[in-house]
Amino acid sequence: MLGKMLENVRASCPLIHNITNYVTVNDCANILLACGASPIMADDCAEAAEITSLCGGLNLNIGTLNSRTIESMLLAGKRANELGHPVVLDPVGVGASTLRTQTALELLAQLRLAVIRGNISEIKALASGSGTTKGVDADAADKVTEQTLSGVATFAKSFAEKTGAVIAITGAIDVVSDGKTAYCIRNGHPMMSSVTGTGCQLSAMTSAFVTATPDHPLEAAAAAVSAMGLAGEIAHQRLGKLDGNASYRNYIIDAIYRMTPDILEKGASYEVR
Amino acid sequence: MLGKMLENVRASCPLIHNITNYVTVNDCANILLACGASPIMADDCAEAAEITSLCGGLNLNIGTLNSRTIESMLLAGKRANELGHPVVLDPVGVGASTLRTQTALELLAQLRLAVIRGNISEIKALASGSGTTKGVDADAADKVTEQTLSGVATFAKSFAEKTGAVIAITGAIDVVSDGKTAYCIRNGHPMMSSVTGTGCQLSAMTSAFVTATPDHPLEAAAAAVSAMGLAGEIAHQRLGKLDGNASYRNYIIDAIYRMTPDILEKGASYEVR
Amino acid sequence: MLGKMLENVRASCPLIHNITNYVTVNDCANILLACGASPIMADDCAEAAEITSLCGGLNLNIGTLNSRTIESMLLAGKRANELGHPVVLDPVGVGASTLRTQTALELLAQLRLAVIRGNISEIKALASGSGTTKGVDADAADKVTEQTLSGVATFAKSFAEKTGAVIAITGAIDVVSDGKTAYCIRNGHPMMSSVTGTGCQLSAMTSAFVTATPDHPLEAAAAAVSAMGLAGEIAHQRLGKLDGNASYRNYIIDAIYRMTPDILEKGASYEVR
Repeated sequence: MLGKMLENVRASCPLIHNITNYVTVNDCANILLACGASPIMADDCAEAAEITSLCGGLNLNIGTLNSRTIESMLLAGKRANELGHPVVLDPVGVGASTLRTQTALELLAQLRLAVIRGNISEIKALASGSGTTKGVDADAADKVTEQTLSGVATFAKSFAEKTGAVIAITGAIDVVSDGKTAYCIRNGHPMMSSVTGTGCQLSAMTSAFVTATPDHPLEAAAAAVSAMGLAGEIAHQRLGKLDGNASYRNYIIDAIYRMTPDILEKGASYEVR
Repeated sequence: MLGKMLENVRASCPLIHNITNYVTVNDCANILLACGASPIMADDCAEAAEITSLCGGLNLNIGTLNSRTIESMLLAGKRANELGHPVVLDPVGVGASTLRTQTALELLAQLRLAVIRGNISEIKALASGSGTTKGVDADAADKVTEQTLSGVATFAKSFAEKTGAVIAITGAIDVVSDGKTAYCIRNGHPMMSSVTGTGCQLSAMTSAFVTATPDHPLEAAAAAVSAMGLAGEIAHQRLGKLDGNASYRNYIIDAIYRMTPDILEKGASYEVR
Repeated sequence: MLGKMLENVRASCPLIHNITNYVTVNDCANILLACGASPIMADDCAEAAEITSLCGGLNLNIGTLNSRTIESMLLAGKRANELGHPVVLDPVGVGASTLRTQTALELLAQLRLAVIRGNISEIKALASGSGTTKGVDADAADKVTEQTLSGVATFAKSFAEKTGAVIAITGAIDVVSDGKTAYCIRNGHPMMSSVTGTGCQLSAMTSAFVTATPDHPLEAAAAAVSAMGLAGEIAHQRLGKLDGNASYRNYIIDAIYRMTPDILEKGASYEVR
């Protein structure tokens, strides 16, 4: 099932409009190409809606937001909604500043989102309308573990139901829910947190997956999450004794490039609750 | 002949001012260093012209343009023209939005350009003043093939004559013309399109080549185009079975770093029409 | 002693707020993660001070400054000063434009800086209030050699005394002084200048080191400088015959990721004057 989602991306080559932070934008572009999609970045108000019209899906990431790009996100998001294009929101660092919290809440209020992807602290901050995230990483107190998993799945379902979006909470264990069902995904490797932007890359890739299979956003998002984690596992096996996080970054993207539907299908590790 | 162009870059170490998109800017900087040039990026109106004055050449790329950087491109371009510095334009995604089309046309109208480099859809959109590009990639219908090559060469010559700029159309077969002569270059590898920014990198490198040999912009641009394609071939041979587009990105820049005038001279595959 | 500085970073995982250029920002984030710190980038005036409050240290880099980010640097810097957080300034290209010179001088006048890190031309331009830097690289005439080292050390001491900041001048030989003592560091490799942003990365890493050991900013800065140079040496030994500056870039960050306090302690090459 998840393998089919990747197959659909490679078959349809969706064009994804990204309004994303400048820290990890190059990796987002390359991972989109790696999975079979095509990226375009455009963040000026004067062209945001028009570029969205050309594309199949939209990826909004508030990692280095500013007044100009916030307006572009709203313009592009509204146009995408009009056209029925899936919109993915990555609320990077929501809760870390009033600007981020207000912006994320405004995007949530004004747009119909297909998927919201973040770490547990970010999703909690978004759900509660406030929060104290430790910058862009999840708080230790929030970490998803076997003990807390059940509660996190319930929370994800409830927030998905409330927003109408698929909620993808990623961390040591990932939880993806559409309000009814929750995928609990155990792919990934702890070293992924030492590479900047694996979350941003995943959000970009999720946009491609839901654009390629718009009628199954839950399975599409779960497939993207599983594929990213699996790529982290494959890339980790490849590390030599001199390799560190920079080589790991490259190997993760390489693993997505080399991933086949069959590899994903066999390597995906998840349960459905 | 083309090898000599690379030799001139390495001998003169031209300093290149880049006003370019934030997606691929790091790769542009590293490929400039790889070919023997030195990059500086500065996009604020308050310093654009002054920074250009320090440099030998200017590279303008509209990939993530905004109102602030558009003004800076005009200011820097005019100063470069006053000083007789070569200006290269990469009209990324022209035709994909009104803003991009108008900006590219304004840069074309107001500046004397040494080289315009883009894919066939972009150059056609620029020549016609409108267009429907598929984001930042060439339309399938436009692809340069053996069948269409002759027509593309004629088009390139005619647009070069009209603009006074060397026109570099890159794709499966590259065509570089100054209005009289056309280089048809067969270096490169299809996998280059799975790496973001190979076009941007080539435009940056072209700026270095024409700055190092300003009296022969046609040969300089053809050498840069051929060098980039050859690097794509060399890098592709180096790929291991686990390598994907991220490693390929690094290997392409590495191949430029390791390229000698002799390697370029022997590896260049082109005919002059 | 220098090894202990790295140990402190890994033990305390300082969160560093970076307002830095978009050319090398991804490498800055990855090298912060590699050394054990955590990066956050935020450059909008509406959140700059608030984000700084969450963090332990602040890294200001004027590489692609603009009117919006200059204001954010001042806001974040003042807040960091109020909170007693170390602030590192990287005056990229100061002297190359009036905007850069004025901005760097304003930051110097308005903020209490823990460390100022630049090449010799940049630090001279900052000390004299004017200058003619060759873009972002040191002028050949300024290069630090065995012959000029003594004078450079005296200059660094004097500028450190005047500003109250540790001055880190990096080049073929690095000089780091707090006004009383000067570390003359001989780690590094000439090929590092063919990778864009090794200076920016070092400034980011220096922020992490001084944040982790705020009571010993001289030793912390010297340790960061030595670690970066040592990483350049280790990475250079790893280069294969096809590797160029792109692979070298990755290997340098990898070497920081793999560096232990013991490796740094044994590999550091310096004298204290």
